[in-house]
Amino acid sequence: MTESLQPEPGPTTERYEVFHTDCAARDMVGHVTSRWGVWVLIALRPDGLRFHELRDSIRGVSEKMLAQTLRALVQDGLVWRTVEPTAPPQVTYGLTEFGLEIREPLLDLFDRINRRLVPAGASGTAEGR
Amino acid sequence: MTESLQPEPGPTTERYEVFHTDCAARDMVGHVTSRWGVWVLIALRPDGLRFHELRDSIRGVSEKMLAQTLRALVQDGLVWRTVEPTAPPQVTYGLTEFGLEIREPLLDLFDRINRRLVPAGASGTAEGR
Repeated sequence: MTESLQPEPGPTTERYEVFHTDCAARDMVGHVTSRWGVWVLIALRPDGLRFHELRDSIRGVSEKMLAQTLRALVQDGLVWRTVEPTAPPQVTYGLTEFGLEIREPLLDLFDRINRRLVPAGASGTAEGR
Repeated sequence: MTESLQPEPGPTTERYEVFHTDCAARDMVGHVTSRWGVWVLIALRPDGLRFHELRDSIRGVSEKMLAQTLRALVQDGLVWRTVEPTAPPQVTYGLTEFGLEIREPLLDLFDRINRRLVPAGASGTAEGR
């Protein structure tokens, strides 16, 4: 896991360490901050949403991209998935405890950007955190 | 800016509002959380790095992708850029005050993921925050 490609060993090595270790963490950061991952994690709650509700809540996402994003987040343990054996099957997704924890800095990020771009009092803050 | 595509108006509308307004915020979140944007913002400091130092600090980034990522972050006001008129010109990038503010939730995100994946005491935390 610690494969150093640091070209200039010395005082700066530690500073860049995050980029040269923990590939698993780097992969997961990639999933969380993927084009749709951010919005899925912000849209989902612990109590779950049906697939079509989630799709309708995120402007511009295709069913294919949403399914692919959800698959990675379920594998990472950030999102849970249940299938009810009805016809057609009802698939529900929700945030795990870990997903809820990871959602916090994403909401924080969104709020900081939003505060910069939107005058105070205007709509569009990430409510309900 | 407020173009509602909400298919089911009602109690849930406010919940999804972030996805239907503030396209500028959504674009900026996209830049910040782009494949390389996250790592550029974590690697940069207010005092600046030369282009090649930044490139060497982020494993796997191409010069083209790094330049493209930096261009978007400069346009968003997150990163400053100076060019010293030497031969060849020395180009330096650093975090603006806003960039520094946006870096905080990214470090928080990385730390939360890292704590989950790496046992306490092991290396690889996002140091120097």
